[in-house]
Amino acid sequence: MEMKSDRETNQYAADLSSIKEARERIKSFIHNTPVFFSDSLDLMAGRRLLFKCECFQKGGAFKFRGASNAVLSLDEKQASKGVVTHSSGNHAAALALAAKMRGIPAYIVVPNNAPKCKVQNVIRYGGQVIWCEPMFDSRRITADKVQQDTGAVLIHPYNDGRIISGQGTISLELLEQFPEIDTIIVPISGGGLISGISLAAKSINPSIRVLAAEPVGANDAALSKENGRLITLPQTDTIADGLRAFLGDQTWPVVRDFVDAIITVEEKEIIHAMKLCYEILKVAVEPSAAVGLAAVLSDSFQQNSLWNECKHVAIILSGGNVDLDVLWEALYKKT
Amino acid sequence: MEMKSDRETNQYAADLSSIKEARERIKSFIHNTPVFFSDSLDLMAGRRLLFKCECFQKGGAFKFRGASNAVLSLDEKQASKGVVTHSSGNHAAALALAAKMRGIPAYIVVPNNAPKCKVQNVIRYGGQVIWCEPMFDSRRITADKVQQDTGAVLIHPYNDGRIISGQGTISLELLEQFPEIDTIIVPISGGGLISGISLAAKSINPSIRVLAAEPVGANDAALSKENGRLITLPQTDTIADGLRAFLGDQTWPVVRDFVDAIITVEEKEIIHAMKLCYEILKVAVEPSAAVGLAAVLSDSFQQNSLWNECKHVAIILSGGNVDLDVLWEALYKKT
Repeated sequence: MEMKSDRETNQYAADLSSIKEARERIKSFIHNTPVFFSDSLDLMAGRRLLFKCECFQKGGAFKFRGASNAVLSLDEKQASKGVVTHSSGNHAAALALAAKMRGIPAYIVVPNNAPKCKVQNVIRYGGQVIWCEPMFDSRRITADKVQQDTGAVLIHPYNDGRIISGQGTISLELLEQFPEIDTIIVPISGGGLISGISLAAKSINPSIRVLAAEPVGANDAALSKENGRLITLPQTDTIADGLRAFLGDQTWPVVRDFVDAIITVEEKEIIHAMKLCYEILKVAVEPSAAVGLAAVLSDSFQQNSLWNECKHVAIILSGGNVDLDVLWEALYKKT
Repeated sequence: MEMKSDRETNQYAADLSSIKEARERIKSFIHNTPVFFSDSLDLMAGRRLLFKCECFQKGGAFKFRGASNAVLSLDEKQASKGVVTHSSGNHAAALALAAKMRGIPAYIVVPNNAPKCKVQNVIRYGGQVIWCEPMFDSRRITADKVQQDTGAVLIHPYNDGRIISGQGTISLELLEQFPEIDTIIVPISGGGLISGISLAAKSINPSIRVLAAEPVGANDAALSKENGRLITLPQTDTIADGLRAFLGDQTWPVVRDFVDAIITVEEKEIIHAMKLCYEILKVAVEPSAAVGLAAVLSDSFQQNSLWNECKHVAIILSGGNVDLDVLWEALYKKT
């Protein structure tokens, strides 16, 4: 018996209809974020760039889309026990905010070396912080224990259809705002964002290119695409703290089948792009959010004739949560 | 014979009708800038704050409103000779951009110690840079000479009714966007911005409070108000490079008669407010643009019962033109 591919059987964690349902569910709670332009940046990139400003989303990042979709998807009985996740980043704060909105508890397992500002966001949104050791195993074990003790529902940061569907609502907004978009460049980490975006965008317009942007120092997605199988890394090294996670078994098939290419960028390209966002767009992005602009300005993109036809390029500015003192210190070390 | 006051004779450099005319003149060339909010900042300020994001204006600052109004006010014969100004800041770039838009020359007299990034903006917009010595006299003398040589029209950065009328269009937009605004806080330097804003806002709604925010290290407006006469300083000392100019004879009468109070803020308050704009609003402002938020958060504002009734406070984020490397270095020196 021949195996059918995932694409033929449509075996993915989300699809256009789950993404449209997500939008109905969350639309009165999220911001329809603006799209910014700059003639100066267009000139540098040699094409029209459209910056989708998810840094202006509630909680300061796209993560609130998926988190609110997941929390609002729960039935009353499930919801009453609350939600739990292990994350030190934007998903943690977004889940706390979504839970607060529904009036249910959020238990956030946080490694004890997490950035102070991100933990403060969780606390500000009423999340209950449960500390654990920084090792990944400790995070998982602690989250399992919280789940057993409280009956809370685990909401994974990206390896979850509800999360992927929520993030996919970006494509619905974007293609309504600017139907002429022919390319979308998306930061890739665990793959929740690009999975939702590519599933929605390619269902609406199959000729759209979806490109992932990734730091060289956390290039698991590039290696996975190259090798045709899910590869993780022993460690990562990048200033882009939101891009240090690895693809999961729910996101890898989507990335494998729907993402046209992965563009890797150097640290200095990320920092340069971040400065351009501040200095030219006047938008305060976190380093992870700058990889899309870094990619479109990179030699590997500019000199590849494959991308000559990318004339209206949307770039997802994924978030703006940054502790400036920490960032500045990191920049001084890097430059 | 008794002298009538300026207020009675309406002897000001602009009024509601000149501001409405300015708006008609410039509206298809400028951005109607968005207004941002933050529940977190509202909590800190104890009231609703509405941030008018002029950093997203063309040229990165409100200055393009006045500059485009001035350039578009010229008749064909005047315009054909071009425009000239002496400025190293946002007005220079804005005037260059406005002149480029009309297809006329812009001669920009720039002190040879001006920040590189601001000069680059002028050049990027096609302005012709004429270098001079950093002393104020040299700037004026050089500009006079350019005027004689070229026949170009001098467009002063703030002491000019066309400029004041252009900046005043901010009030028209703002009070249409949010009629419930009861207070507007405006950075003050030469006074062009606050003159336009206060003349328009108080004509539309006489009960609106207009407050100026000023660094302690450049407190000529506060001293002038206190003494009831125009006072300038021998020198200034502030990181807010856009707020080092002094009131002029066109702007002082408006500030004297229409600005309810001047709130002075310390350097550390400016830097703290600037960080809040980046970290919470995700908006990259220049230091000068942060003084309004610094003022509303200051003890002198918070503890003054005069301002208890300020419940819907608009804050003008005046611009976002900053050379990050220079800013960061300055911050390291200040903190």
